[in-house]
Amino acid sequence: MRNTLRLITAGVALACSSSALAGPKNIIYMIGDGMGPAYTTAYRYYMDNPNTKHVDPTIFDQILVGMAHTYPEDDTVVTDSAASATALSTATKSYNGAIAVDTHKAPLKTMLEIAKEKGMTTALVATSQINHATPASFAAHNESRRNYNEIADDYLDNKLAGKLPVDLLLGGGTQYFLREDRNLVKEFQEAGYQYSDSFSTLSDIDKLPALGLFADKGLPYAIDENPERLEIMTKKALSLLDKSKDKGFFVMIEGSQIDWCGHANDIACAMHEMHDFAQSIKLAKAYVDNNPDTLLVITADHSTGGLTLGADGKYLWLRDVVQGVSKSARELAKSLHNAKDLKTTWVTHTKLPYNKSTAIKLKQAKAEGLDALNSVVKSIINKASYTGWTTGGHTAIDVQVFAHGNGYQDFIGSQNNTDIAEKLINYLR
Amino acid sequence: MRNTLRLITAGVALACSSSALAGPKNIIYMIGDGMGPAYTTAYRYYMDNPNTKHVDPTIFDQILVGMAHTYPEDDTVVTDSAASATALSTATKSYNGAIAVDTHKAPLKTMLEIAKEKGMTTALVATSQINHATPASFAAHNESRRNYNEIADDYLDNKLAGKLPVDLLLGGGTQYFLREDRNLVKEFQEAGYQYSDSFSTLSDIDKLPALGLFADKGLPYAIDENPERLEIMTKKALSLLDKSKDKGFFVMIEGSQIDWCGHANDIACAMHEMHDFAQSIKLAKAYVDNNPDTLLVITADHSTGGLTLGADGKYLWLRDVVQGVSKSARELAKSLHNAKDLKTTWVTHTKLPYNKSTAIKLKQAKAEGLDALNSVVKSIINKASYTGWTTGGHTAIDVQVFAHGNGYQDFIGSQNNTDIAEKLINYLR
Ligand SMILES: [Zn+2]
Ligand SMILES: [Zn+2]
Repeated sequence: MRNTLRLITAGVALACSSSALAGPKNIIYMIGDGMGPAYTTAYRYYMDNPNTKHVDPTIFDQILVGMAHTYPEDDTVVTDSAASATALSTATKSYNGAIAVDTHKAPLKTMLEIAKEKGMTTALVATSQINHATPASFAAHNESRRNYNEIADDYLDNKLAGKLPVDLLLGGGTQYFLREDRNLVKEFQEAGYQYSDSFSTLSDIDKLPALGLFADKGLPYAIDENPERLEIMTKKALSLLDKSKDKGFFVMIEGSQIDWCGHANDIACAMHEMHDFAQSIKLAKAYVDNNPDTLLVITADHSTGGLTLGADGKYLWLRDVVQGVSKSARELAKSLHNAKDLKTTWVTHTKLPYNKSTAIKLKQAKAEGLDALNSVVKSIINKASYTGWTTGGHTAIDVQVFAHGNGYQDFIGSQNNTDIAEKLINYLR
Repeated sequence: MRNTLRLITAGVALACSSSALAGPKNIIYMIGDGMGPAYTTAYRYYMDNPNTKHVDPTIFDQILVGMAHTYPEDDTVVTDSAASATALSTATKSYNGAIAVDTHKAPLKTMLEIAKEKGMTTALVATSQINHATPASFAAHNESRRNYNEIADDYLDNKLAGKLPVDLLLGGGTQYFLREDRNLVKEFQEAGYQYSDSFSTLSDIDKLPALGLFADKGLPYAIDENPERLEIMTKKALSLLDKSKDKGFFVMIEGSQIDWCGHANDIACAMHEMHDFAQSIKLAKAYVDNNPDTLLVITADHSTGGLTLGADGKYLWLRDVVQGVSKSARELAKSLHNAKDLKTTWVTHTKLPYNKSTAIKLKQAKAEGLDALNSVVKSIINKASYTGWTTGGHTAIDVQVFAHGNGYQDFIGSQNNTDIAEKLINYLR
């Protein structure tokens, strides 16, 4: 903890002496989808070394500077990812579902478009399909986040002075780019983009512009397959962008599936997504430390699931239980569904006892089918770890704001999500 | 929002120019018991003027600077009020239940005691009994928060160089001070303390030392009786302390019952407690604005109830429903229990429709008794407003830190709750 405090204090001193400097040249904007304050808190305890008495601070603790209000334009108070991403990319509040359009469905200029117009290099990285709500709100305009094909088309058709707005796209979504009615991959290639469709060929991409699509829709959960896929994409993006840092770059990197695990009320799934996001943040922070003209800003679009650490009256959150789980509930349910030996599958992937009550519940759920198994798996893990959830949707709690590097002090304190965008856009103008 | 941002930016600039100044002379330390980030978020939307398009920032938004980790010394992750207050008053983590003692049950010197030794004037203000866990951890030492009589005794017996540690005590708890085995009120009076036992005679107190006890145990909920009781006590405390500001003062002011409403999962109750606390903060902030050698630091000991804004899959939190409720569930249950006309009582105190489903639920609960009525009242209000709760206990989510005045910049960022205490104690030494 000591070190963190000193870092922060030193940072404040730096802020004072550097206040006369110009704004940042490069911007790394990271969004943890659904990453409310309960997630960063949970991640600290989840990652803690049980052999030391103190609790180690995380990368989030090192660069926390403030919080942000996420409400959308209407009176619902609770935002969806589209309205919030629109606020975070355009500085304008809109309705739930809006992709960089206002309440009259008129397009709003995004900070990525502003950066591109200014001659900067631009990039979007996500673990969801790359045309999902958050990245979409930076480079497309649509009245509905559900129009996935139109949004993918927009990445090509929405040209700025004859140029495509985004120089690098990394994420999932092949099914939206290789369609019967239109082959966007081919069009991107014709426009000069290098293309990769798997992590094994990602290293072949050696310059921009480039497109990488690594799954039909979203990438698999970090807990189930490649736990470092966002870290890998972040590393690649930063190394490609670094080559054009002379003219400046803007990149938005999303930890997309923290939200998805939250919707599923799957705590182990969420912690693995947090870890991939945290490791990616470490890379971005290291980049900033080596390139002090760069600003790193991180926030969330909203919190998901109504996650609480502690539940049912107990003053306890058992991180050990969460640490023992090695599959998403969705995949564990599939394994249990196909398993001849429920006990071995259960114990292997949860490290929880296969006691009488668990056996009865699993057998009964297995008879009912996959959905029932998925539910019961999560119910047992949440109960055993004292993890609480109140919803399969989002909540309105303020989210945190983290910042590091040139200009970080502008994000200290409480602010609207549109204020974050406004400050970033002001650097770009 | 614009104004807030300017204030914060101005504050940062001030921090730089004032970094060479001495530390604060007076410290106002305010603790919102149970006030996790969902509570301050809820309060913003609860207070918002529905006739304006934007959402007005609250007093909390104006002075947010960071967050704090609340875990106790043991491995539970989730703290109780005693362990957290001990951390916040002594800079040492201890076990749940500890009143300013360490894990070996040895007394820990509190910042109030340090202030007193330095010759400063000291005060404790709370809406709970004044010997409840939070205030107790500033001026008493006990292995268990449950030893209320011993803690009250300690306020008199724990002398520092022949003097009582606390010059002003305002709160509830008469039953612990006027006991058959000991009349502490008489002893305080013999030690020179003025005494008041009701808000109507509070104005008679015109100098320190003084003792004010306004209820047998905790004061009534703000929503049920005197909605401004903390504000009144805060005003009185600051005006009395102001007379001795030449030698400096330390005061801890607790919004004690935010936590109690949280334990009860009673959202309207919690919002009224938040309002009384917020109004008290406004007074404290105004005092700092007039006395720039004063530091105001505000935090929470933990969050309570697992409150979430939004529940059951709906992207909605209906503040109007919460605004319509004018009694705590506990008192509304009593009213319904005694009512001949359920409908009138219900509609008067909730502004919710008395529809068929509500009528059936209330009648059935009435037949079962007070507890059932209390539960069903909350269940209907929480469901109607999309307010979620996961526990009757506490949760481990990080809490916010707010600061204003001389030294506020030291609290920017993420920190341990013990770090807050350490920084304050360093000013006192
Ligand atoms: Zn989202
Ligand atoms: Zn408490």
